[in-house]
Amino acid sequence: MSSTSHPTGLVSLVGAGPGDPELLTQRAVRRLSQADVVLYDALVDPAALEFAPAAKRVFVGKRSGRPAISQESINRLLIRLARNGRRVVRLKGGDPFVFGRGGEEAIALASAGVEFEIVPGISSAIAAPALAGIPVTHRGVAASFLVVSGHAESAYGPVIDGLRPHSATLVVLMGVGQANALATRLMSLGWRPDTPVAVLFGASTSDSRTLVGSLEPLARGETVLQSDLPGTIVIGDVVRVRQELRGPAEAALDPAEAAGYLGTGDCVA
Amino acid sequence: MSSTSHPTGLVSLVGAGPGDPELLTQRAVRRLSQADVVLYDALVDPAALEFAPAAKRVFVGKRSGRPAISQESINRLLIRLARNGRRVVRLKGGDPFVFGRGGEEAIALASAGVEFEIVPGISSAIAAPALAGIPVTHRGVAASFLVVSGHAESAYGPVIDGLRPHSATLVVLMGVGQANALATRLMSLGWRPDTPVAVLFGASTSDSRTLVGSLEPLARGETVLQSDLPGTIVIGDVVRVRQELRGPAEAALDPAEAAGYLGTGDCVA
Repeated sequence: MSSTSHPTGLVSLVGAGPGDPELLTQRAVRRLSQADVVLYDALVDPAALEFAPAAKRVFVGKRSGRPAISQESINRLLIRLARNGRRVVRLKGGDPFVFGRGGEEAIALASAGVEFEIVPGISSAIAAPALAGIPVTHRGVAASFLVVSGHAESAYGPVIDGLRPHSATLVVLMGVGQANALATRLMSLGWRPDTPVAVLFGASTSDSRTLVGSLEPLARGETVLQSDLPGTIVIGDVVRVRQELRGPAEAALDPAEAAGYLGTGDCVA
Repeated sequence: MSSTSHPTGLVSLVGAGPGDPELLTQRAVRRLSQADVVLYDALVDPAALEFAPAAKRVFVGKRSGRPAISQESINRLLIRLARNGRRVVRLKGGDPFVFGRGGEEAIALASAGVEFEIVPGISSAIAAPALAGIPVTHRGVAASFLVVSGHAESAYGPVIDGLRPHSATLVVLMGVGQANALATRLMSLGWRPDTPVAVLFGASTSDSRTLVGSLEPLARGETVLQSDLPGTIVIGDVVRVRQELRGPAEAALDPAEAAGYLGTGDCVA
């Protein structure tokens, strides 16, 4: 048994935040530095792994859209490693309990009697807008926000359809591919065509890109959104706060940011 | 000019997370250690201030429900300090852009031409449930979550009323005082009386308390919720995941947690 293993093992389900390793929590860094093994996803920035120089690193994310390893195999691997006394970090982009299947892994570990813990991370749902100067809530503008998965209409449809137009800021994760369909649907539900929209790629990283515009050109399909980076979409009047912040202080918000305008046919490739 | 001041000054709007200083980000800790002045709220755990041993610390939160200092005065103070070349941390509980008036402060700073930045923090909206074993999203159970301010019916009413019952996990911040009214309203809107509810006080701190139950006893007013600690309410079937996690691994989720059952008249004072 190595000096870093301990008799019972422990699995830490750790959120890596949106990308910038400076946005890792202190606990995340500590767990990485203590880890024997790190299982990480495609959305995890490689810089985060540098905090675990001694650990074995196992990629368990998707390659070309297909899982490298099934969820069941990940669960079995986590359980086996912990039973062998390993300190395991299961590192996920953002927060492990926001569209991260962290709940499923936690249930599998609990069922197996394996000791585990949750280490929350900075979710892109809040931080991607924030780093672009967009607060998801703002006094007099929005007192609530709804976070949906945009990967399929069956995921966001039932909740979007009931929502009173403009009653909450709408944050869409994994929805870039469905952005045109989503915009069309919102307009048919009564959302104003000029409702502000921001699309945020690669938040907190040096490759970050922000596009700002409105629902109508997005619905018309004039805008082609393309990027290998994860994208977050924000819809609502809070996007206007960003405009108020632009000017002398813009550089401080995100020096690496290259802003575009959504609706002029801009394409981020 | 002191050795820690610099010509232009900088205001960092920093999220302190839910309380446990281990959940501060690395950037938050760095900014605190570099700060000349820290302006902090009531919700900030005193332990976070220990990362700024050299800074002047100014309390600008509420005392007995009343602001110690107006928002306008806070804005003016931030601007004056930055213009004097100070490195200022404006430290807020959770995330600065989730019900934190961070947007207003950012606009004031931008208007004054003061350099500033946003440092996102771990929001209790996601982390309080997570630390109690409740994922706000869970495959097959919830693909979206709505975060509302519960301080007044006028804040949550318009968005709750339109929401299709059970179409999203509902997370309520600052809503403990309105919990009975909120539960009654949800049931009148068609939410099942047995919809699971969790009330989380002081998440991530050594005083944390979790109560679990359902809408009906909460609506009937059988449950008196009382605490000096900030409370987060989660409503939806994801609360059942917590039950699946209880058992051998419970201690790892939150060793300090004392669980109660909501609906037996439990009172957390």
